Amino acid sequence: MVEIRKPIQMAEAVERVMSHVHKLGTEMLLLEDTYGRVLAEPIIAKHDVPPFDRSPYDGFAIRAADSAGASGDARKSFQVIGEIGAGHVADRSIEEGESYRIMTGALIPEQADAVVMLEQTVENEKGFTLRKPFEAGENISRQGEDAKKGERLVEAGTVIHPGTIALLATFGYSQVRVAKRPIAGVLSTGTELLDVADGLVPGKIRNSNGPMIRAQLTRMGVESKSYGMMEDDLDACTEIVERALQETDFLITTGGVSVGDYDYLPAIYERLGAEVLFNKVAMRPGSVTTVAVLGEKLLFGLSGNPSACFTGFELFTRPAILSMMGCTAPFMPRIQAKLGDDFKKANPFTRFVRASWSMTSEGIVATPAGFNKSSAVSSIARGNCIIVLPSGTRGFEKGMTVDVLLLGAEQGVERWEL
Amino acid sequence: MVEIRKPIQMAEAVERVMSHVHKLGTEMLLLEDTYGRVLAEPIIAKHDVPPFDRSPYDGFAIRAADSAGASGDARKSFQVIGEIGAGHVADRSIEEGESYRIMTGALIPEQADAVVMLEQTVENEKGFTLRKPFEAGENISRQGEDAKKGERLVEAGTVIHPGTIALLATFGYSQVRVAKRPIAGVLSTGTELLDVADGLVPGKIRNSNGPMIRAQLTRMGVESKSYGMMEDDLDACTEIVERALQETDFLITTGGVSVGDYDYLPAIYERLGAEVLFNKVAMRPGSVTTVAVLGEKLLFGLSGNPSACFTGFELFTRPAILSMMGCTAPFMPRIQAKLGDDFKKANPFTRFVRASWSMTSEGIVATPAGFNKSSAVSSIARGNCIIVLPSGTRGFEKGMTVDVLLLGAEQGVERWEL
Repeated sequence: MVEIRKPIQMAEAVERVMSHVHKLGTEMLLLEDTYGRVLAEPIIAKHDVPPFDRSPYDGFAIRAADSAGASGDARKSFQVIGEIGAGHVADRSIEEGESYRIMTGALIPEQADAVVMLEQTVENEKGFTLRKPFEAGENISRQGEDAKKGERLVEAGTVIHPGTIALLATFGYSQVRVAKRPIAGVLSTGTELLDVADGLVPGKIRNSNGPMIRAQLTRMGVESKSYGMMEDDLDACTEIVERALQETDFLITTGGVSVGDYDYLPAIYERLGAEVLFNKVAMRPGSVTTVAVLGEKLLFGLSGNPSACFTGFELFTRPAILSMMGCTAPFMPRIQAKLGDDFKKANPFTRFVRASWSMTSEGIVATPAGFNKSSAVSSIARGNCIIVLPSGTRGFEKGMTVDVLLLGAEQGVERWEL
Repeated sequence: MVEIRKPIQMAEAVERVMSHVHKLGTEMLLLEDTYGRVLAEPIIAKHDVPPFDRSPYDGFAIRAADSAGASGDARKSFQVIGEIGAGHVADRSIEEGESYRIMTGALIPEQADAVVMLEQTVENEKGFTLRKPFEAGENISRQGEDAKKGERLVEAGTVIHPGTIALLATFGYSQVRVAKRPIAGVLSTGTELLDVADGLVPGKIRNSNGPMIRAQLTRMGVESKSYGMMEDDLDACTEIVERALQETDFLITTGGVSVGDYDYLPAIYERLGAEVLFNKVAMRPGSVTTVAVLGEKLLFGLSGNPSACFTGFELFTRPAILSMMGCTAPFMPRIQAKLGDDFKKANPFTRFVRASWSMTSEGIVATPAGFNKSSAVSSIARGNCIIVLPSGTRGFEKGMTVDVLLLGAEQGVERWEL
């Protein structure tokens, strides 16, 4: 007797996974090690940026009032009383008719309130002359114009990218509190699987899901432990899963979640007392994708079909991992594009089509990456995005507008919208 | 006397840099270490994928001809002569009226040419009955339907992502020939600079460019050596640059490329005999961006202003690094978006505005990330893209269509188009 599973909708499946995410703790890291981590605390400006009025150019710092009335016929003269290099400070404030030679980034001396660019002057023995008046504040980078002390600049839950690091450096964060990263367990099932280094034999194929999933984790900076390929024995399998759950923060299995005689995962979930959140999703590929939870740990039972496995990871596992780290925008960013090719298959379920997008003279075009069965592997290699075709449709024609999820993007979005 | 530099256009500047890139060699890596590397050889299918006709479902393998004429009133009976698990092969071929129970992924036995899904059968003691005829080939994943032996599937010069790894695993590449990665030298100049851990003092700011650039390199998987912050002495500086060039594949300096009295880089290039490819680009921020070449090594003289430094790296250094590795699509991908805010500054030069894009009900909207002077640091932290505003324009209004370059994207494009 075949077990009949009732599919749930994608949005509901995503919600069930995300609501069972257990947040990891935090740790302090050296600034240089924080790229790709998630901020555990907001970045609040510790001081004004810039921290003082400074010169944006090489030039002369003057009192603007002293240039009043300057013209081509009545040039105003200024005496240069010294030089202020970047990082240095003036010996004294300036007085009427005086100026300092000042370098880019240097602190504006007291009483000065404008900077004259070199090319606006004619230099002479004692200093220079000007042919136009300057206004107070002209050519000055004002203290706090970029950020004010106490301003909340970046929220906790943000993934740290190079710009975030520049800001952290500005405020002197040589160490940064970030979310811990989870350690993933990866376990492939399937009696047909060979190791990558093995020669082909009839009826067998090499395990591509294991290396692929580990690369999907590497792309996120997440370490994984491989538990190899599962033996054809329910007791042994259960033991491996138990051990993996002790040693890691969550487990990804590939294969074994269908309703076939050798699909052990449902039995293992039952033996371990894991709560199955769903075992059928109204999606193609990967309708058999199963997610269970045991204590604080999620068990992602991805399909053994490569395309389904890949898609299941990106749709469920990736946002869950980011959420474990407190990331507030854990979902793939979406754009809209024109479909580059007919896609005539009907969609009783939401369909996720591996595709490649590019900018063309007709706008953004996303084209299915060739052979698109759930068992396909070549289309995963060729794709850089996933086209999402809603359920209940009879096929799509070239040129129609479709939703596209970007793979391998650094930014994310807060909500699952499809 | 101020040196007057003649700016060159962006496209010309990019072309000059790219034409001076020296390709690095190749190396063999374990498959699991190849994420983010560039393929040095194309992936050519070593065998058909799938390598044999297989069952896409759990079901029964039959000869389609034996089901001819089946109907609800005249069900056809099949005898089950055995079971084929995935990875196993049938003991013998089937004959008239026979079938095998077959698992997902298992090799179709000889003479069988269709698979009947479990839910399409009524099982009985000896086997099962069918109520409809099947066609030859029905429910069979055909050998080679995904890829044919000898097919060129992925070109050399492609960045390896998880899907590429799945394909490499499929063909048994436990080791992969990839391009070597360059080692970068990073050197910050500026007498106003403090280390990140230092307390602020009047006139000084912390070095944010160094950590930022190293993170931009980390994002690309490129290792860097830091040469700290340059001393205020031309001889010492020249020595550091010489040493850095010996120890690394290319050098990034920040600051010191302007025409000020303390801008040592032009003098250092001259002393070393480096050829300056350009020292003024018609772009904002970062018009002082300078690139020189000495032998096979590029010297990127980025601006000391954080936003200009960041942008210069992404526009020039990043594609050059990818090209060193043989990547054929080294440029940031472009999309078009609606401008989310007025941007009223005139653009005598091409302007690169740090911005944040998102999908809205009105399409993709890109909004400048706040304070946008070249010295800004907060806008780098807030941005996920760069809006490109062409030169010779008087400002842009909210809602206008603009070009946007995506930061931190895994895919690239082949040509600089702006």
